[in-house]
Amino acid sequence: MSVEDLAVAVDEVPLVDHHVHGALRGEVDRAGLELHLTESDRPVPGWMTQFDSQLGFAVRRWCAPVLGLPPHADAADYVARREELGAAEVTRRLLAASGVEHFLVETGYKGDSILSPAEMASASGARADEIVRLEAVLEDLAHDGVGAAELPGRFPEVLAERTVDAVGLKSIVAYRFGFDFDPERPSRAEVVAAADRWLRAGGRVDDPVLLRFLLWTGVDRGLPLQLHAGYGDPDIELHRCDPLLLTRFIKLVEPHGVDLLLLHCYPYHRNAGYLAQAFPHVHFDVGLAVNHTGARSAAVVAESLELAPFAKVLFSSDAWGPPELHHLGALLWRRAMRTALGERVAADDWSTSDAVRVARMVGRDNARRVYRLEQR
Amino acid sequence: MSVEDLAVAVDEVPLVDHHVHGALRGEVDRAGLELHLTESDRPVPGWMTQFDSQLGFAVRRWCAPVLGLPPHADAADYVARREELGAAEVTRRLLAASGVEHFLVETGYKGDSILSPAEMASASGARADEIVRLEAVLEDLAHDGVGAAELPGRFPEVLAERTVDAVGLKSIVAYRFGFDFDPERPSRAEVVAAADRWLRAGGRVDDPVLLRFLLWTGVDRGLPLQLHAGYGDPDIELHRCDPLLLTRFIKLVEPHGVDLLLLHCYPYHRNAGYLAQAFPHVHFDVGLAVNHTGARSAAVVAESLELAPFAKVLFSSDAWGPPELHHLGALLWRRAMRTALGERVAADDWSTSDAVRVARMVGRDNARRVYRLEQR
Amino acid sequence: MSVEDLAVAVDEVPLVDHHVHGALRGEVDRAGLELHLTESDRPVPGWMTQFDSQLGFAVRRWCAPVLGLPPHADAADYVARREELGAAEVTRRLLAASGVEHFLVETGYKGDSILSPAEMASASGARADEIVRLEAVLEDLAHDGVGAAELPGRFPEVLAERTVDAVGLKSIVAYRFGFDFDPERPSRAEVVAAADRWLRAGGRVDDPVLLRFLLWTGVDRGLPLQLHAGYGDPDIELHRCDPLLLTRFIKLVEPHGVDLLLLHCYPYHRNAGYLAQAFPHVHFDVGLAVNHTGARSAAVVAESLELAPFAKVLFSSDAWGPPELHHLGALLWRRAMRTALGERVAADDWSTSDAVRVARMVGRDNARRVYRLEQR
Repeated sequence: MSVEDLAVAVDEVPLVDHHVHGALRGEVDRAGLELHLTESDRPVPGWMTQFDSQLGFAVRRWCAPVLGLPPHADAADYVARREELGAAEVTRRLLAASGVEHFLVETGYKGDSILSPAEMASASGARADEIVRLEAVLEDLAHDGVGAAELPGRFPEVLAERTVDAVGLKSIVAYRFGFDFDPERPSRAEVVAAADRWLRAGGRVDDPVLLRFLLWTGVDRGLPLQLHAGYGDPDIELHRCDPLLLTRFIKLVEPHGVDLLLLHCYPYHRNAGYLAQAFPHVHFDVGLAVNHTGARSAAVVAESLELAPFAKVLFSSDAWGPPELHHLGALLWRRAMRTALGERVAADDWSTSDAVRVARMVGRDNARRVYRLEQR
Repeated sequence: MSVEDLAVAVDEVPLVDHHVHGALRGEVDRAGLELHLTESDRPVPGWMTQFDSQLGFAVRRWCAPVLGLPPHADAADYVARREELGAAEVTRRLLAASGVEHFLVETGYKGDSILSPAEMASASGARADEIVRLEAVLEDLAHDGVGAAELPGRFPEVLAERTVDAVGLKSIVAYRFGFDFDPERPSRAEVVAAADRWLRAGGRVDDPVLLRFLLWTGVDRGLPLQLHAGYGDPDIELHRCDPLLLTRFIKLVEPHGVDLLLLHCYPYHRNAGYLAQAFPHVHFDVGLAVNHTGARSAAVVAESLELAPFAKVLFSSDAWGPPELHHLGALLWRRAMRTALGERVAADDWSTSDAVRVARMVGRDNARRVYRLEQR
Repeated sequence: MSVEDLAVAVDEVPLVDHHVHGALRGEVDRAGLELHLTESDRPVPGWMTQFDSQLGFAVRRWCAPVLGLPPHADAADYVARREELGAAEVTRRLLAASGVEHFLVETGYKGDSILSPAEMASASGARADEIVRLEAVLEDLAHDGVGAAELPGRFPEVLAERTVDAVGLKSIVAYRFGFDFDPERPSRAEVVAAADRWLRAGGRVDDPVLLRFLLWTGVDRGLPLQLHAGYGDPDIELHRCDPLLLTRFIKLVEPHGVDLLLLHCYPYHRNAGYLAQAFPHVHFDVGLAVNHTGARSAAVVAESLELAPFAKVLFSSDAWGPPELHHLGALLWRRAMRTALGERVAADDWSTSDAVRVARMVGRDNARRVYRLEQR
């Protein structure tokens, strides 16, 4: 096998995108599209375009041909062609060309504007299963009406019902508070007191006691537990999302036999690699960063393959909204792996067959094992 | 356009060095020169030479030919040739060959031993404008005599006078305290109390209340505000200079419409890239690190082009003293951009014309927009 | 001289491995070997093998031929061949082929199961000297019986006896507490009180007062002082092992004229580079990480050659146990240096003779100077 064989093999891995959201349901104009090409929630200033970014360049380079345009098409031409084809056709083309065989769809954020897991399966021809966001389940429960005193008992019941068919759970404690929380399970009395405050005040859940209650109830549920880590939108304080701040929580979870999946992790992905080496139940990916660093994702992916055993690294896109993100998540990861692994093979550090095996583990097999997808 | 065209285009960008200091006014011997080739303020130990560093190797490789020596000239030969030509001629040659068209000169540090902005313009043939250091203005005011009670009112007046012709402000709160300060604007009473303590004690300003007062008065002034971030001399505690620690301050400044420019940022430049993506008013550079990492600056510059939109990244040398630093800041940046962008073009990730456009944005156009240099 | 000459010259540097432990004394089966190929102390889960890691791939690629197998041999074949040859022969071959001329052996961890410095010298044909771990000396003293009140006086005496022939000291305060300790020397009364608590409670020393007492007694002893920093086993909380957290301690030690050697440092090696530039008495290495990042160590080594003057960077393997680690520590470092320096020469950033000189400084000469090995 040669380096060329490696490239072909990497391109042919049927991917499991283990953390992704739905594609946008409707049409989007240029301004709307640009807003989806950044984690910023601020308006794009008039003196710049979000197309002038690694992600914007990647859209023009790699998505344009899928829509029948030349590579590096102008942003204006790209948007015009997108509108001409219509959202449904754009989504169908970009999802189908991604080579993803299985989407694990996290449904907790603005679900009305994006495709459901079933619709994702229909649009792509791939399988789709659900990841349930803990905070959303609690907020739905509050919306449906629950008393503070009954909340500690009701939430696990509702979570069990809500996750009958789910393959995993997700926590966004990083967004709502940060990782510098007391890692211990809160007492029932603490939870009731915090719930009482929160239910009176309303709004989204950002009380650290309640967020910890969600985490520990998630651990009790026994499904693989995803945690947003590292880079995200301006809601986060990034230095408080270093996954190393979870070290004590990770140690407390270890005896429970629940797998933890640290998502994204950039720019702390080397730290995540340490955790994945040290603790058998810790896994991680560099999703989101792969899209947003565009062509530089080759460096990020290479850095993610340092300390962690190869059985502990997964692939995800973290795409939400424009199907360009679903497409590029897969395409840029394949290109990055081809580069990172190709260098190893070209320097005779690794054999080609080992490199191909690592690509399959990271792209597919590790996720199938962690989420028990064979058994479904 | 080819990769060679890209190299030529990058070399021809007329640069705006948006954060730089004056070149040394007088002669310097070998020991003095070595002290300027490090951020350390300690004597260079007898068992080593500062020429044995990335920066030292870059001086011998790239500055030697400008002085008529072969590349990689011995340090001793280099110093001898330098003395032979004299400081004025060395400065003239190195500045002129840098391809900088406009220096934004920060004048707050040891101004007597280095060229003023006007002298920089004269020595280089380029334009020069001034950036005013907030801490220096306050220390000058204290030196001229001011009472604690009148300081909160007087400082904004003095700052306005001092910055009539300035294009921006600079804060060194990173050096004097760190970024882990209370981000809120201090009350008048707090400022008076802190000023009273400081004026009695004397010395440089390092009280966090006064440093915050300077920052907020700077925001009121409305000019672009530079903040030293990351790597610097042994005065700093580097982990307290991670720009992420500014997140809450950045959010508080946002509604005021003032641009923040995070300087240097190494080794936290990826963190700065996140801030530049998240917040429209945040920009950054990797100046200083480009010089001190020498040939490795190609990696640093590449890492600076990940999350940030390309309209938010700027070029600077942060040179202070030996004109080698002004020269290499520009030269190493050009080489780094040629490498970083050349890889993108060679891999067909980016078009050559896009790559050239990014080089022009980072090297010149972004600074011209932020500092409104067209209107001057 | 050409790039090929550089490769030959780097391969021929007789190395000083300035931080290493003994090779395993006895036989080890596959499960045992795998446990030594990770810093994790947890059992390797049944669904993975530790051979599927950067380090595992490096063992199969580079150690297999030393044992007479083809490169990239299967893990099962490798283990079988290892058992066939026997531990003594495997150790002899791997140590001899490492090209290390001098091992500085730290003896403080599980000394019974590994070779002593004298046995390392015998097995390898190289010189071996000892580095003494401060915490082990104190724990031995407690084991031999010491009263809290006499401990502050007795420990320096015992340390002096124990280090008559030692070339350096080692602290594992990073493991036992973290670097976020009060950097001041504790008072005698504080030490006695802490000793009293510790001697009653038993166990290993993890009281921060006692750990600081060890550090300061080590400084008084006057030998070069190694500090574990960064990545290690799950005992550590990695974010509390960032060497930047030592900044105030480093400043307090500076007037005492004692060299500090920051070991490993990954993923904070750029931070260590800053400290090595700022402070004349600070040196560092990226040992341990070189082995565990395998082929990616080329990137890690390159990053270690940024801010630090080249006189301040050292080579170590931090090998403990399987002689594969001793062998690969040297081999991967040589390969990484060939790549990192070769890039500089190929791009005409550095001359070949400068590159060779840097390899000799880092691989041998800096350690000989710091530990005064010429004078022994």
